[in-house]
Amino acid sequence: MATIDSVSPLAPTSFPDLPEIQGVEFAAVAAGIKYEGRKDVTLIRLAPGSTVAGTFTKSSTRSANVLDCQAKVGIDCDKGAAFIINSGNSNAFTGRAGENSVAAICEAVAAETGLSADRVFTSSTGVIGERLPHDRITSKVAELSAGLSVDGIEDAAQAIMTTDTFAKGASAEVEIGGKLVKIAGIAKGSGMIAPDMATMLVYIFTDAKVSRPVLQAMLSELTDKTFNCITVDSDTSTSDTLLMGATGASGVDVSAGDAAFRGALHGVMQELSHLVVKDGEGATKFVEVSVTGAANDADARTHALAIANSPLVKTAIAGEDPNWGRVVMAIGKSGAAADRDLLSIKFGDILVAEKGWVSANYSEEAGANYMKAQELTISVDLGLGSGEATVWTCDLTHGYISINADYRS
Amino acid sequence: MATIDSVSPLAPTSFPDLPEIQGVEFAAVAAGIKYEGRKDVTLIRLAPGSTVAGTFTKSSTRSANVLDCQAKVGIDCDKGAAFIINSGNSNAFTGRAGENSVAAICEAVAAETGLSADRVFTSSTGVIGERLPHDRITSKVAELSAGLSVDGIEDAAQAIMTTDTFAKGASAEVEIGGKLVKIAGIAKGSGMIAPDMATMLVYIFTDAKVSRPVLQAMLSELTDKTFNCITVDSDTSTSDTLLMGATGASGVDVSAGDAAFRGALHGVMQELSHLVVKDGEGATKFVEVSVTGAANDADARTHALAIANSPLVKTAIAGEDPNWGRVVMAIGKSGAAADRDLLSIKFGDILVAEKGWVSANYSEEAGANYMKAQELTISVDLGLGSGEATVWTCDLTHGYISINADYRS
Repeated sequence: MATIDSVSPLAPTSFPDLPEIQGVEFAAVAAGIKYEGRKDVTLIRLAPGSTVAGTFTKSSTRSANVLDCQAKVGIDCDKGAAFIINSGNSNAFTGRAGENSVAAICEAVAAETGLSADRVFTSSTGVIGERLPHDRITSKVAELSAGLSVDGIEDAAQAIMTTDTFAKGASAEVEIGGKLVKIAGIAKGSGMIAPDMATMLVYIFTDAKVSRPVLQAMLSELTDKTFNCITVDSDTSTSDTLLMGATGASGVDVSAGDAAFRGALHGVMQELSHLVVKDGEGATKFVEVSVTGAANDADARTHALAIANSPLVKTAIAGEDPNWGRVVMAIGKSGAAADRDLLSIKFGDILVAEKGWVSANYSEEAGANYMKAQELTISVDLGLGSGEATVWTCDLTHGYISINADYRS
Repeated sequence: MATIDSVSPLAPTSFPDLPEIQGVEFAAVAAGIKYEGRKDVTLIRLAPGSTVAGTFTKSSTRSANVLDCQAKVGIDCDKGAAFIINSGNSNAFTGRAGENSVAAICEAVAAETGLSADRVFTSSTGVIGERLPHDRITSKVAELSAGLSVDGIEDAAQAIMTTDTFAKGASAEVEIGGKLVKIAGIAKGSGMIAPDMATMLVYIFTDAKVSRPVLQAMLSELTDKTFNCITVDSDTSTSDTLLMGATGASGVDVSAGDAAFRGALHGVMQELSHLVVKDGEGATKFVEVSVTGAANDADARTHALAIANSPLVKTAIAGEDPNWGRVVMAIGKSGAAADRDLLSIKFGDILVAEKGWVSANYSEEAGANYMKAQELTISVDLGLGSGEATVWTCDLTHGYISINADYRS
């Protein structure tokens, strides 16, 4: 397992104060899955009347846990639900044994909680290809159930970490019809994402009342604008999972759609997704890449991801080099429509290139000075149409190589 | 400009003895484009009766030189042709000034050699976005022309280098109808490829007689199997250029197609493409990725490139870590068809994984031992069909980060 002592320079100073979400309880214990002396299994219990929605990795080699969650997430769970998460072993590419592990865990949680096994959702994150010692989890289910508490969310955020250098949480409160609705979420992940210790897992809770189809539609749409717009290394985990539970305990029904709730949820998801990038393996810079003027939104996204995933752009950022030529290169290779002579490129507010050449007013000194900042924006206008997209990434540094090459997993 | 002193550990011990190709002459001089005290402009003259074919970058932001070459390469050049190449400045993203530079260079060469300007092909490689000081080139054309020599190919291979750590050449001789036909080529490039000092340029010559359409068709087909199957960092230059000239001086006409000639040319192109990978920025390992059993050849190529471009696979190779889980991850993310439970993976001859899990006979010790080799093969069988593809890459090391981040260009 990679062991990097230092916390990301982009980490917040502390874990935020998250509001308690009525109807959601958390517990975490140390089960010794892989790590010694730290909590590595989390149980989350959702009260009767809750709805659950989820989005998952598109990998064709996804884990048994993901396949099981996907099969269950479309079913209503009026009697409540449970999420159980372990770190230290991803249970991915473990064949039939992996499916058996998922079934064993679900049955143990069902027996303890009185839920049906198809209302239990599992996630596993950690090393790939090793049999999950699920007995260590099932033997802890009674202890987990006894320890459930409404204020255990920070413990849970800690227990789901693998190579993460800090625990990640975000929340929002919004008043709807004179009543307060709360949203709180936690995430883990430090790449987009290694199968080996760096899967992205996200759990979000609200006390709003939302029908399952509406919750699923909102979650899918907002995932496309947040978690699907971040990239650390262009790699995709076999286990990425986002689950959201809505307990309805606030008495506020947003099933008919509510702009304030949607906006608040978007904010929580954006914050959590940015925290994942800020814990990107080896990251020292947080970068927003914004593309406008593309032929359409899909082209804008293709260009934005080509820039955000380019090793040459990312190493230039690490070196604080305003190397706009590499941005031009990335646009050129993306495969989406571009006209060299209509392109303009900005670093922050600095117009770097326009009309197929470096801008007349651009000074390399101003560019180099801008690149020293910890948070950067690269904006590209293609001058072709109204398509736009924004994605977020980090730089590519010696730290990334050290984490992934120098240390044996 | 990046300055890395050491030669790639994968470099051949010396530049090969290349045969003289009758009808092709070379000259190189120091023009001070960017570098001091080294040859940086090359002139290559092809005798009357030669045919020329080329393949180029697909980048939508390609350089003025590439656009000019593409416009000219379909024209017959019975009166001969000239190639003129400079290193130190790519003349890419330089707007109208870039087009003017190309025109000025072509006219100067035409005036000196008596060729029509549309029979002069230019390449520029080096920093992007800076105006090419083309006067330094045009003022050297007379000296270049006077210095043309049939044995100047090694000088030319040196003069086209930028961040390359060694000069690259390859050759073949093949007897056809009792007569000897020769092929010799040179290449530069150390990424696939940075726009900034690391464009790939390739020039190949033969004394076979080949009609232009046949030469172009053969070159395009073999480029797809060689230069289009290598990747260092998944980035694509704005200037990649491959030009081939056939002088016909051997008197052997292969215009009707000849398997021996085609095989010999394939060998030269494969060798040159492998040399480019072996000079990949920071490379310490040369890796062949071979995919079989895919639904079709296109899917096989998608999987092979997903593996070869994955930063996590490439850092694992750098760390000599037999991390087959990352190979599974790369297959899963590629988007092409795969069935986790039909996959098998080999490192060299070692069966690592099969039927959705680690192979029963696999030992981590054997895998780790294999990974210490300098040349590695990763083979994946998907068990779905008969599609196959092979691509070549190198590892991702601290050296890559140092070249592209720590040094300012």
